[in-house]
Amino acid sequence: MMKLSRSLLSRNLSYEKRLFGEAGDVRDALCLHVFAFQSGISTATRDFSLNVASKGNSAARVYAPYTVYKGKAALSVAPILPSFTKLDSGTFRVERQGVMLLTIWPSIGERKYDWERRQRFALSATEVGSLISMGPTTSSEFFHDPSMLSSNAGQVRKSLKIKAFSDGTGYFISLGVANNILKSNEQFVVPITTAEFTVMKTACSFVLPHLMGWDRVTNQSEPVDIVGKLSKENSQLLDSEWDK
Amino acid sequence: MMKLSRSLLSRNLSYEKRLFGEAGDVRDALCLHVFAFQSGISTATRDFSLNVASKGNSAARVYAPYTVYKGKAALSVAPILPSFTKLDSGTFRVERQGVMLLTIWPSIGERKYDWERRQRFALSATEVGSLISMGPTTSSEFFHDPSMLSSNAGQVRKSLKIKAFSDGTGYFISLGVANNILKSNEQFVVPITTAEFTVMKTACSFVLPHLMGWDRVTNQSEPVDIVGKLSKENSQLLDSEWDK
Amino acid sequence: MMKLSRSLLSRNLSYEKRLFGEAGDVRDALCLHVFAFQSGISTATRDFSLNVASKGNSAARVYAPYTVYKGKAALSVAPILPSFTKLDSGTFRVERQGVMLLTIWPSIGERKYDWERRQRFALSATEVGSLISMGPTTSSEFFHDPSMLSSNAGQVRKSLKIKAFSDGTGYFISLGVANNILKSNEQFVVPITTAEFTVMKTACSFVLPHLMGWDRVTNQSEPVDIVGKLSKENSQLLDSEWDK
Amino acid sequence: MMKLSRSLLSRNLSYEKRLFGEAGDVRDALCLHVFAFQSGISTATRDFSLNVASKGNSAARVYAPYTVYKGKAALSVAPILPSFTKLDSGTFRVERQGVMLLTIWPSIGERKYDWERRQRFALSATEVGSLISMGPTTSSEFFHDPSMLSSNAGQVRKSLKIKAFSDGTGYFISLGVANNILKSNEQFVVPITTAEFTVMKTACSFVLPHLMGWDRVTNQSEPVDIVGKLSKENSQLLDSEWDK
Repeated sequence: MMKLSRSLLSRNLSYEKRLFGEAGDVRDALCLHVFAFQSGISTATRDFSLNVASKGNSAARVYAPYTVYKGKAALSVAPILPSFTKLDSGTFRVERQGVMLLTIWPSIGERKYDWERRQRFALSATEVGSLISMGPTTSSEFFHDPSMLSSNAGQVRKSLKIKAFSDGTGYFISLGVANNILKSNEQFVVPITTAEFTVMKTACSFVLPHLMGWDRVTNQSEPVDIVGKLSKENSQLLDSEWDK
Repeated sequence: MMKLSRSLLSRNLSYEKRLFGEAGDVRDALCLHVFAFQSGISTATRDFSLNVASKGNSAARVYAPYTVYKGKAALSVAPILPSFTKLDSGTFRVERQGVMLLTIWPSIGERKYDWERRQRFALSATEVGSLISMGPTTSSEFFHDPSMLSSNAGQVRKSLKIKAFSDGTGYFISLGVANNILKSNEQFVVPITTAEFTVMKTACSFVLPHLMGWDRVTNQSEPVDIVGKLSKENSQLLDSEWDK
Repeated sequence: MMKLSRSLLSRNLSYEKRLFGEAGDVRDALCLHVFAFQSGISTATRDFSLNVASKGNSAARVYAPYTVYKGKAALSVAPILPSFTKLDSGTFRVERQGVMLLTIWPSIGERKYDWERRQRFALSATEVGSLISMGPTTSSEFFHDPSMLSSNAGQVRKSLKIKAFSDGTGYFISLGVANNILKSNEQFVVPITTAEFTVMKTACSFVLPHLMGWDRVTNQSEPVDIVGKLSKENSQLLDSEWDK
Repeated sequence: MMKLSRSLLSRNLSYEKRLFGEAGDVRDALCLHVFAFQSGISTATRDFSLNVASKGNSAARVYAPYTVYKGKAALSVAPILPSFTKLDSGTFRVERQGVMLLTIWPSIGERKYDWERRQRFALSATEVGSLISMGPTTSSEFFHDPSMLSSNAGQVRKSLKIKAFSDGTGYFISLGVANNILKSNEQFVVPITTAEFTVMKTACSFVLPHLMGWDRVTNQSEPVDIVGKLSKENSQLLDSEWDK
């Protein structure tokens, strides 16, 4: 069982807060997913995304989570790319790291799932490294405190556990959220086959350099989107998503 | 031996039906392969493909299967990319998942193969994950019912088995199709060396994120083809392929 | 020790003949490498390359072999990409498979190597698969007959052997060319460390889908160069290389 | 423990000297990183970079190191891409190999690090191969002499050691610089978890073909930046970075 150092927690947690707001804000599942996938959207005024097409106003935002539906819950995995800040020198610096977003929501009947009760966990690049390095018999455990940098520190505690089956044919992925403020305690468990976990590991290995921004370092000849125009575009998109 | 849960079968099977029609429709091998590789062609009116060039009317469709010819049969592997739907918000959502298409057809003499008797098996992303995770001594087995969502459910049964040689120097890939309607029972077996299987695993690992659409998530600055124009292009192509 | 089936030999051998002519034709090392890397150059009139830039007349040909210099010989590895044929339907089909080109040439003194005595071996995609699947204690052996499809069949025999050190710290790569016509028998051996072999395996895994043309299948939105113009460009380049 | 042959040292060392000047020259951390990432900047007049955008004067330089902060020191890893020379024939040849740049700098208090005392180590492609091939119990050691090709040869000695924990849960990465001229001896040690090392290995595997220039061989349709204009651009950038 591997536990990650708490020195890395604060970054993930304030990130989740900033990106998703309070639990329950988003009514439409599609809105949430699209919002989550728009890397670069933040309250910082000089925040740029190098992930949106630069040709005029058309941006290609793509919604492609890998989702598995099981008896007790469903689990969805998708990358959220980093955002960049442009320095005066013209160089782009990573503003917000990319993450791998896990979402789990419970089953409420035969082939029916309750999206409203979803819980999320945003894996950092290093936590993704932990997942990639897992073998058929190892386990990993990650702890996040979404309120770590605020006055509510310690009130909400999220834990993600990936535990191998004893026979090596799969893993249990369980996400627990203990919320002292709401007096709630959610626990979701999803069994994952070796094949499904291989898909996740392979896709994570593919996307990890993108979460780190290294695809931008190696691909410097690609067009880069311009500031202000991008923020307005994303704002409009966001409004239209929220009104659905 | 690993058997995949039947909860994933229906999606693959209706997909194969929709893409390929009844067995025997396509007379020209090249037509079939090209048709198969045109991701995004479906009867849905708002079905888009993000895989076709956006510059004017020129689209770069590429035919590049990995094929091995053995004594009793030949086997061909090629990716079919996913298709996307454009939402009102401008976001693209995966409409139809990508698959890895396996085609096997029997030998009828020295260096002669009967393309007309080919059988196909479309591996989903998760089934590809199963293939990638195979070691030198493991085996996998997949079952598809192409008619699962129709009145003919249970009448046609496809099984793909990948079984390791006992000495670890290769695998048998066997595809069986039992058809109660046609009263036929085809069984093809192709021995694959470790080297050939490594090519398949490496190529599958490369293409898996593309089957999932994750290359589109990470590569948002690439041009995206526009709806209507795309459908007409593909229709014309399709007609010309069928008439050959 | 793995020996590849001879059924795959003919393709590689006529390919080497067509691409490189007789041993000794090329006087300038750079010429040879550049010629070798211009995928798509062949005597076929309708042979296209999808690897050359389509913007006007500027094509980005890149010369970037991975080379190691050892006491007795030097070894160089570089990919040669496939070439494509355009069908009437507008679809591109692989015309000539890509290969991984190994070149070995002997040392003739302290830090001096004799490029004129170089020997080449072009690994097919499947042979690259064999290399990628090698562990620290395995060995591989490949046999090519460059004259297999001609009247000189059996007169020239090339063998490439990759044999692990007994202590697992590296490999011997030896290339032997027995030529009954020239009455010559060249044998070159290069010791490769585990680190150097890891570079080759990693680079081979990266480039294998490109050798198969699968990067073209997944990247259909990239511009494609036009026929006639390409052939003339490459011809001019070739002449200028030969005259150096 | 693996020691690399000294025959490869000279290339790395003169490279580090040429790129970074004497220790202590750069006052601003960001300057150094940006300078380091501008592949292609050298004193050679005909040195080109294929890594800078070709559209007009806008170049997308991206600063995205993977950094871990530990108790005694911080460690940063980032790729520096190769630079290319354009031959008269129009072919591009690798001028300077790419490297993976490791930077370590010491802690001077709670969450405080002294950038001024940083030390760097530039891993060649082969040394990156060594890192990628490491298992949970192996170790690697590399030696560089930055002054090898000058009159100060032997006066400065850098060693980078990557040593696995005995329980297989991580590695110590230690960088030592013994400088006889300055009479100094710096030693930095950073403990790395298995997860963090997996991120480095995965990112290194991704970037290795780019360090070798093989992404340029496989991606020949991408635009290529023009000579003279590039050098002037980079010079201006460099001046502005140094004056910060």
